[in-house]
Amino acid sequence: MTHSLARTQSPSRLSALLSPRSVAVIGASADALRIGGRPIAYMLERGYAGRILPVNPKRAEVQGLPAYASVAALPEVPDLAIVAVAAELTPAVVAELAERGTAAAILFTAGFAEASPEGAALQAQVVAAARRHGMRLLGPNSLGVVNPRNGFFGSFVSSVELGMPRAGRVGIVSQSGAYGGHLLAAATAAGIGLSSVVMTGNEADLTLGDVVQVMVDDPDTDVIALYSEGIREAEGLVAALEAARRARKPVVMMKVGRSAVGSAAAQSHTASIAGNDRVIDAVLAELGVVRAKSTEQMLDIARLATRRIYPASNTLGVITVSGGAGVIISDAAEDVGLPVPEMPAAAQAHLRSLLPFASPRNPVDTTAQFMNDISLVGRFTDTLVTEGGYRSVLGFFTYTGGAPTIAARLREQLRPVRERHPDRLFVLSLQASPEQIRGYEDDGFSVFEDPTRATVAIEAMGRFGRAFEAAQKQPAPVLPAVALPSHTPTEAQAKRLLAEAGIESAPERACAGSEAAVVAAREIGFPVVLKILSPDILHKSEIGGVLLGVADEAAVRAGYATLIERAGHAAPDARIEGVLVAKQLSGGVECILGTQRDPVFGPVAMFGLGGIFVEVMKDVVLHRCPFGDDVAEQMIRSIKGAPLLLGARGKPPSDIPALARMLSRLSAFAVAAGPSLQSIDLNPVFAMPAGEGAFAADAVIEIRRGD
Amino acid sequence: MTHSLARTQSPSRLSALLSPRSVAVIGASADALRIGGRPIAYMLERGYAGRILPVNPKRAEVQGLPAYASVAALPEVPDLAIVAVAAELTPAVVAELAERGTAAAILFTAGFAEASPEGAALQAQVVAAARRHGMRLLGPNSLGVVNPRNGFFGSFVSSVELGMPRAGRVGIVSQSGAYGGHLLAAATAAGIGLSSVVMTGNEADLTLGDVVQVMVDDPDTDVIALYSEGIREAEGLVAALEAARRARKPVVMMKVGRSAVGSAAAQSHTASIAGNDRVIDAVLAELGVVRAKSTEQMLDIARLATRRIYPASNTLGVITVSGGAGVIISDAAEDVGLPVPEMPAAAQAHLRSLLPFASPRNPVDTTAQFMNDISLVGRFTDTLVTEGGYRSVLGFFTYTGGAPTIAARLREQLRPVRERHPDRLFVLSLQASPEQIRGYEDDGFSVFEDPTRATVAIEAMGRFGRAFEAAQKQPAPVLPAVALPSHTPTEAQAKRLLAEAGIESAPERACAGSEAAVVAAREIGFPVVLKILSPDILHKSEIGGVLLGVADEAAVRAGYATLIERAGHAAPDARIEGVLVAKQLSGGVECILGTQRDPVFGPVAMFGLGGIFVEVMKDVVLHRCPFGDDVAEQMIRSIKGAPLLLGARGKPPSDIPALARMLSRLSAFAVAAGPSLQSIDLNPVFAMPAGEGAFAADAVIEIRRGD
Repeated sequence: MTHSLARTQSPSRLSALLSPRSVAVIGASADALRIGGRPIAYMLERGYAGRILPVNPKRAEVQGLPAYASVAALPEVPDLAIVAVAAELTPAVVAELAERGTAAAILFTAGFAEASPEGAALQAQVVAAARRHGMRLLGPNSLGVVNPRNGFFGSFVSSVELGMPRAGRVGIVSQSGAYGGHLLAAATAAGIGLSSVVMTGNEADLTLGDVVQVMVDDPDTDVIALYSEGIREAEGLVAALEAARRARKPVVMMKVGRSAVGSAAAQSHTASIAGNDRVIDAVLAELGVVRAKSTEQMLDIARLATRRIYPASNTLGVITVSGGAGVIISDAAEDVGLPVPEMPAAAQAHLRSLLPFASPRNPVDTTAQFMNDISLVGRFTDTLVTEGGYRSVLGFFTYTGGAPTIAARLREQLRPVRERHPDRLFVLSLQASPEQIRGYEDDGFSVFEDPTRATVAIEAMGRFGRAFEAAQKQPAPVLPAVALPSHTPTEAQAKRLLAEAGIESAPERACAGSEAAVVAAREIGFPVVLKILSPDILHKSEIGGVLLGVADEAAVRAGYATLIERAGHAAPDARIEGVLVAKQLSGGVECILGTQRDPVFGPVAMFGLGGIFVEVMKDVVLHRCPFGDDVAEQMIRSIKGAPLLLGARGKPPSDIPALARMLSRLSAFAVAAGPSLQSIDLNPVFAMPAGEGAFAADAVIEIRRGD
Repeated sequence: MTHSLARTQSPSRLSALLSPRSVAVIGASADALRIGGRPIAYMLERGYAGRILPVNPKRAEVQGLPAYASVAALPEVPDLAIVAVAAELTPAVVAELAERGTAAAILFTAGFAEASPEGAALQAQVVAAARRHGMRLLGPNSLGVVNPRNGFFGSFVSSVELGMPRAGRVGIVSQSGAYGGHLLAAATAAGIGLSSVVMTGNEADLTLGDVVQVMVDDPDTDVIALYSEGIREAEGLVAALEAARRARKPVVMMKVGRSAVGSAAAQSHTASIAGNDRVIDAVLAELGVVRAKSTEQMLDIARLATRRIYPASNTLGVITVSGGAGVIISDAAEDVGLPVPEMPAAAQAHLRSLLPFASPRNPVDTTAQFMNDISLVGRFTDTLVTEGGYRSVLGFFTYTGGAPTIAARLREQLRPVRERHPDRLFVLSLQASPEQIRGYEDDGFSVFEDPTRATVAIEAMGRFGRAFEAAQKQPAPVLPAVALPSHTPTEAQAKRLLAEAGIESAPERACAGSEAAVVAAREIGFPVVLKILSPDILHKSEIGGVLLGVADEAAVRAGYATLIERAGHAAPDARIEGVLVAKQLSGGVECILGTQRDPVFGPVAMFGLGGIFVEVMKDVVLHRCPFGDDVAEQMIRSIKGAPLLLGARGKPPSDIPALARMLSRLSAFAVAAGPSLQSIDLNPVFAMPAGEGAFAADAVIEIRRGD
């Protein structure tokens, strides 16, 4: 693929996107408020050290810089170009730039694929012109790139009117220009330092995944914050997110369009596919990406992540000057699943020896007594780490953190503890002036006013840690390519295909006549299940095509006749191949296993308990295919109804290994079957008691309609 | 009760707590940083207009004010007194103040019930001394009262070092002093104006409910924000919250201690009972109180509530300059259940006539085009209200709301729309300077930087509206007092008691011998259920004491013998009264109905679906007893598994009216049974198909152990 090739071959060339040594501005304007003028004005203001090369046929000078009449007239090949000319002029300009060997161009211009079919055609021309000479494109319809570290401002974003962004180590990638500008402003207001901000626009060439890869390769970026409205190209994004994990660069992502209304808005807003939101959740969790629920949360998590402390076995120790805050923090920690274990008894005794009426369990409460003896803060906090062993420490000091009579002494108490334990995450919840907060931050503390927000961000650091340290997973089973029929197979065919992949069904026999059915039933053993056998009848139970608990030979004969009669009545045109005689399983737990082709991420496997659990409670778990038995077992154990499989209510535990094996084999089957597979439904699967296996009682394979 | 009496009789006297005309400070200090000095210094700084009367036996003057040697020496009876003397001196001081006729006293002093049993005894003395003369007490161990409207500062809270609170119309009541101080500082930082802040401390006399009632009676308070760590006295709080609802004063509450760790911390921190958190949720929802999940959320909701616009049929119209923000807002609205209906077709056509490439569905997107034609903002927003009819409008303008080149024109566009529609809630999500934000706020817009937080707060206004307009509920059934036995009744006795209250069980008969059981079974009709009958065996199925599907007379005889044998084996000392023969119900949906005595709120009813739904999925709903059929039906319809009762998966719908009647009667029974009832479990109850009723198949009534 062109993408992967470019990605592996040219990280150095793509680095020009964030840090060009020279930048040409095609359509440069003397007006600092116009689209072609803003980047130049911003770069001049921020002292960009590279060379700015304005191109404007009508002017010899633009904003005090010598201007050139055309791309051809440029005195050097620019590293990067900004294109701000009319849409219809863009293909020619891009072709010229590419021919001269420019590494990449940012296309501000709108009026392409986002606007009309004609625009889409024009966009294709632009891409073709660039690719001929290996030039990469950001956009079109992109708000560009901002790099506060070196003052490169390849953007006309107006949010900087409210204040120039601070340089730092968080990289932001946004699919939306307007929201990218908002993020830039919000990060600036929150005091978050940025390595660079890239707004991808139409993604005609460089996609979200490509830009994430640029951030992974960027030595100035430690943390990546992503804002996405729709993933256009999953393979590149997944590869880039995997690269980020290998590079131990945490990724926090807002993927919007979760709601029905939101998805509609997302579709009307971009041409992208929103995808199933639960699939997105599953894929991001798999890749170790933390999904944020709001902008504020994304920025909170990104800010804390710049400390680069990601405790895989995260535990929270809390020191507080208010019991109430301790309770709030405990509640918040439980909500997000962050353990707040009790202090060891000896440590509690130690704290009580320092202050008899302290609450020493964790949260550890100094009470207002710390105002009389400020040394309690240092001693309590140090005890939390050395004797409690917590990986993360949250100190709640509220307004005392900024109070003139206390703040300086508090900082003196805290700083040496921070220095003694450089591997721990230290967060403070307090209120203080921006200067005071800067002081704490310089000492190595991250400061959040709200304790709940602090707790949520701390929990995310543990998720990053676990993602980075995730043990090598078991390989997924590899199956030879599955040859699917071109039309939906019958149940018997489906089961045969699955059986070849090691996915077992209840013993059964396809029978073309009543007496054959009797023989089969005798061999399988009573009671049996009878099901109509027809390639044209997918949903058998809806036409009364399934008979359960058929107890003897006479009942098999009668049942055979009943099914043939019902099928003939309900579906007169269906080809009827006879009846399936299957063993009636009992004593197992009913489950549903399935796969569904996601338009973005390909086959996705689903596991849930049977019947109402899936239909009413939506208690299912999803995972991208394929995966191994270990992942399958984690999935099975993760559903809310899992206790039913593990032996709740006096039932024997189910055969989890067999169920996991079936699920992982199903995931491999979905991959081996290729893109013509739409979905598989094994419903129900009986998870038998431990040691007795798991068997599909029904199987439906749907073939994808040609696209 | 003393409380209720005082509450109804003396609102005018209690108003002295917030707005005293004169305040004596017992233990007044010349040092403005000491506990007895801070209130005086703060009041002098804030220009408190009442008379400050310092009492200090060693000084003729305190902080420039004439001081008095004792309470007896005071030249007048103070409206209110602040007591900041040692714990052991407090009873005498309180007695003197009460005798002189002081309306109320704030007790700063600690070392009472929160510290030790001796302290608790001392506290009882203090309360007795006050009550003899009808004086009310706040505290002890209270951080007191702050009233920014009149400068009354009956508090030593040091958070004001960071900035004095603004006067406004939000009243804060906090059970924690330290967290109350934090709230004061956080509200001040967020620019929220406060009517008063009260920190209740030990609540030896005035409880949380009493102080809420003071806020309800306070003409300067429109909105009440509550912070609670444990409800000590439910009756008064419930009455005060009901009064708040009648007065259309919204209450937003943080009740902490939700988590297991949090509850433990809450208990170690106060002497209060945490109660079951789901009971709290149910009671607050019933009373129309919005429960906040974080401090930030509580303050967000309180701030927006000061607009006093509470749309019961809340709908959200969104105008945005970024499609992405529209999606974020739609997602957030769906998460909290706030409808975002589409614009009518004509209105969409109207918007498209104004701007052909606008997204007119709702969210309505002006795109960046509004920068070229600012009038689009006014016209789009007005169209949202007049043609879309939305009760709430959220405008997302991000940094453009503060951008020098845009902000002033934007404000001009928005102001007249706000003026034309005074009954609608208008919220803006934007970034601007504090002065600019003040401007928008003065125009009648509430400003939130984060669009998700804005959406959550808007949704809460609708909940207040629905609480205020809630239709009169059906009365709960009134039952004559139920005479419970002193010991746990047998199943048959329990069912008899319940039957008298109109709660039906499956037909059954208690039989003392095998042949009587056969006769009973014949009359009831086969199949039947046999259950061991003993007052000493509560959990029959655990000893194999239940036989299902007993099909004929021989099986009844054999079953009788089996049960008697099993019971004799499993519980040799149990009194065996025979066997219960009951009709075996089939075709119904299994439910659980029950009541449980909550230590704070008394009997609470529970409804859920049978078996795994309750045990594994925790899919239950709770409500304080008693209530009518309408509330019962709402409860039944509110559980996640409700579709099973309403006819999911091809089953017939259940007899919901009968089930609701049973639930409301059970709630009335729990009240009529009085405090000796611990719990009732009807498990299972069979909800039969519509028209066929609902029947308890088992009933357990537990009697409370004497307390």
